[in-house]
Amino acid sequence: MPIQAISWSPSGAVRIIDQRALPEAEITRDLESAESVADAIRQLQVRGAPLIGIAAAMGLVAATREQRTATRDDFLARLQDLAALLNAARPTAVNLRWALERMLRVAEATPGEGADLWERLRVEATAIWEEDRAMCRKIGEHGLTIIPDGANVLTHCNTGALATGGIGTALAPIYLAHEQGRRVHVYVDETRPLLQGSRLTAWELQHAGIPCTLITDGAAASLMRQTKIDLILVGADRICANGDFANKIGTYGLAVLARHHGVPFYCAAPWSTVDASLADGALIPIEQRAAAEVTVMAGRPIAPDGVAALNPAFDVTPARYVTGFVTDRGIVQPPFSAT
Amino acid sequence: MPIQAISWSPSGAVRIIDQRALPEAEITRDLESAESVADAIRQLQVRGAPLIGIAAAMGLVAATREQRTATRDDFLARLQDLAALLNAARPTAVNLRWALERMLRVAEATPGEGADLWERLRVEATAIWEEDRAMCRKIGEHGLTIIPDGANVLTHCNTGALATGGIGTALAPIYLAHEQGRRVHVYVDETRPLLQGSRLTAWELQHAGIPCTLITDGAAASLMRQTKIDLILVGADRICANGDFANKIGTYGLAVLARHHGVPFYCAAPWSTVDASLADGALIPIEQRAAAEVTVMAGRPIAPDGVAALNPAFDVTPARYVTGFVTDRGIVQPPFSAT
Repeated sequence: MPIQAISWSPSGAVRIIDQRALPEAEITRDLESAESVADAIRQLQVRGAPLIGIAAAMGLVAATREQRTATRDDFLARLQDLAALLNAARPTAVNLRWALERMLRVAEATPGEGADLWERLRVEATAIWEEDRAMCRKIGEHGLTIIPDGANVLTHCNTGALATGGIGTALAPIYLAHEQGRRVHVYVDETRPLLQGSRLTAWELQHAGIPCTLITDGAAASLMRQTKIDLILVGADRICANGDFANKIGTYGLAVLARHHGVPFYCAAPWSTVDASLADGALIPIEQRAAAEVTVMAGRPIAPDGVAALNPAFDVTPARYVTGFVTDRGIVQPPFSAT
Repeated sequence: MPIQAISWSPSGAVRIIDQRALPEAEITRDLESAESVADAIRQLQVRGAPLIGIAAAMGLVAATREQRTATRDDFLARLQDLAALLNAARPTAVNLRWALERMLRVAEATPGEGADLWERLRVEATAIWEEDRAMCRKIGEHGLTIIPDGANVLTHCNTGALATGGIGTALAPIYLAHEQGRRVHVYVDETRPLLQGSRLTAWELQHAGIPCTLITDGAAASLMRQTKIDLILVGADRICANGDFANKIGTYGLAVLARHHGVPFYCAAPWSTVDASLADGALIPIEQRAAAEVTVMAGRPIAPDGVAALNPAFDVTPARYVTGFVTDRGIVQPPFSAT
């Protein structure tokens, strides 16, 4: 069974699995405030573009539990402040902004005072989560057609149950193929620097009983040359109108290598990942993260003191390298519009 | 100043810097026996194809210090046993076999008893080391022509002073360009799983005052797309007659990406790396190393218990991706013959 990455705590806080602690420890945290949700997002305790959006929406609800006695205007003003705080937690994933804007729109469109708005927001956040579960399943169903029995699939980063409210995006077709009894084996890129592949993807695939083999990111090319990879399935943090998309650093290299070796390369993502306001990938802001993620591992230095390191969290893959976009609306091709 | 990776101890043991301990600690070890040299090679305390060859030749001398009173036949029999033991330490690098065979040939061609043979071997091992220093310098001189002032060079693994008896192979042109006052900046692939890039290359470049920036292996592709890389310089562990070559896992992917982005891709190696007995790269034995190198880091698990991992130490890059081979005989093109 796939793991469940997010839920409400009995007191209405946002309950998460701390993904920084995996695979050594399975730690559950109850996030009570918008600050703690923003911190969890910033520190990657909660990560994965869809899950970040859900966590932010649920975080708005948890954080305004005390504002239920407020007037409508006070409630809305506070809500906007909290949404701005959450929105600043990470710059690249479009789902974060998308979920927060949806929550704000709903609040403004709901009549009544603080208590009425809060009740409506709780319903909306739960709806965002449940829609995400349904979207994951649809991505999986549409993606089933590209996973033949016996397939060897390469994936990068974590785009599974730990990245979403449901069974994942790029991993969803794999979960469903396995559920249907197809034999499927996954090569998991460890995904430096934060090792989401080895720490998270390998962990959740093992949890679900799906055979997988961990490799270093640099080993993927020679596996393609040896024709050991039947297809590549990756996620996306933001997809532009023309189909260029941002995903975890290393994705672009895989796309070029896939093209060179004739390996089909698919990007799987919910439709909410499309940011039609951006014409192409050059416009996507790329988050630069701390050098220490590259130079320190498990608290120990792995590079000499004071060495410079470049640590872009994402790269941009031009649409021309993508065989198809596996979405909850089917396997589609750009251009994309918002509707 | 480049670091000195190997020398004789006052008592005639093989003195090395333990490269597994870098960059946290600079530990010198005196290896007294062939077993300890073989262990050091197996455990990568000593690594880099040229340095392994030198260490093995010097190890034969250190290990036969006690055999100097032996008869010629006993000495030669013992020498062959020790050479076989050392030769089995790692399977891919041709320099190891090359150096050991050279030592055995010299011993057999030398008249006299154990003491005479031992004296001759000590001279020969020192000659192998000194020839390597001279070869590094020649590789550097020939390679200078491909390093313009202001160049941004990407390198993979460690092919510097820590991999040789001198100033390295792929790093040699960089050391000489820096020595001549050219501005040169090196992007250093961290080189998973053993991080020779971050632990060793960044350390020795910093030691020599050469500007460098550490990146994860997956970040190289997007730097190429952004035209931040002027050329790529890598080493080789074995070069076939047709120019196919084995090098650290991840090299092949860089070669494909370089071709795709129009970035010149050079392989630098001493002529002794050529194994003309192998027609092409499919014949190179590829060492498969322990899964724990991928799943454990600094003693801590970074993947779930029991997950499968594939850990080939090398990959093979076909000659057609190589702009030129920078050797001590000049910048050359295949086919190669042994002489």
